[in-house]
Amino acid sequence: MDQQLVEKARTLINANLISTTLSTVSKDYDVNIAVITILEMVDDDAIICARFGADKTYANLKETGKGVFLVLLTPDQHTKDGIRVYVELTEDQQEGEYYDRIRARLDQTSYSHFPLRNCLVFKITDILPVSMHKKTFPAQAGYKKGRPNRPGRRRPTSPMIYRYYYQTARGMKIAGD
Amino acid sequence: MDQQLVEKARTLINANLISTTLSTVSKDYDVNIAVITILEMVDDDAIICARFGADKTYANLKETGKGVFLVLLTPDQHTKDGIRVYVELTEDQQEGEYYDRIRARLDQTSYSHFPLRNCLVFKITDILPVSMHKKTFPAQAGYKKGRPNRPGRRRPTSPMIYRYYYQTARGMKIAGD
Repeated sequence: MDQQLVEKARTLINANLISTTLSTVSKDYDVNIAVITILEMVDDDAIICARFGADKTYANLKETGKGVFLVLLTPDQHTKDGIRVYVELTEDQQEGEYYDRIRARLDQTSYSHFPLRNCLVFKITDILPVSMHKKTFPAQAGYKKGRPNRPGRRRPTSPMIYRYYYQTARGMKIAGD
Repeated sequence: MDQQLVEKARTLINANLISTTLSTVSKDYDVNIAVITILEMVDDDAIICARFGADKTYANLKETGKGVFLVLLTPDQHTKDGIRVYVELTEDQQEGEYYDRIRARLDQTSYSHFPLRNCLVFKITDILPVSMHKKTFPAQAGYKKGRPNRPGRRRPTSPMIYRYYYQTARGMKIAGD
């Protein structure tokens, strides 16, 4: 796995930001998403996670075992960053080393009064950035002779917009996958 | 469905916030999540959505048809609000009324230069708040004689903390499900 993404994942996962979610699925393909805050990336391919509520998420993990964490950063309405960490449940501890470790982390948070029910242990199967959609430079891709000139499909003019296109032309990724 | 939740969903979905995500799943239970911004709740039980990238999301929807939108609001590191809208794909338009409608919405955004590939039409199957975990008042639940007094399990003292507990005792929901 890309080491830069691994380090970004570690930083963002371990920050325990309130914008951290876990998406899971039942055997009937019913997808769920929950805000999951108390977790720790304990090495390059493992995450442990405190479970005190999240009944549906927990049931889904017991059924299919697969999920994806998202830490989404939206410093303003126009910028997004973050990480997607794809996982599979490997252990469900009610005691033991990881249970104690996540309990200690939980105790340092405002959730410390919640009774810790499980420490979920995940194997990381993939890490992706938030933004994946590649957009080619419009001069190459979108403005050929005869192409309808839809409203809004204009060449970039301002330096900021130009930079935006320029970067995307070189492979920067700018929308969701 | 709870009309208050329907209205909250309409407001938050139609705001097209950058913190809007769609979680989907493949037939092998591989869960994905993507930031999906251009969408509109067109009536109480339908959402239309612009697809210009999101290849994995699109493939998943074609395979299993189910997903959940989340609009998450985190005005600070301690407060979260938002809505979860559970959906099933009903139509995939490359032209037609909804396609034109989402095209018009797209044209008013900074994504207007993206070529619109599909207008995905979803049926809403459920709407839930972000926070579902019920916590009983600690005076009733957590401080019985003989119960270990773990660090962090303290009675609330400040008015703010008291209010927090008090509201949760009356059914306010405060963590992820």
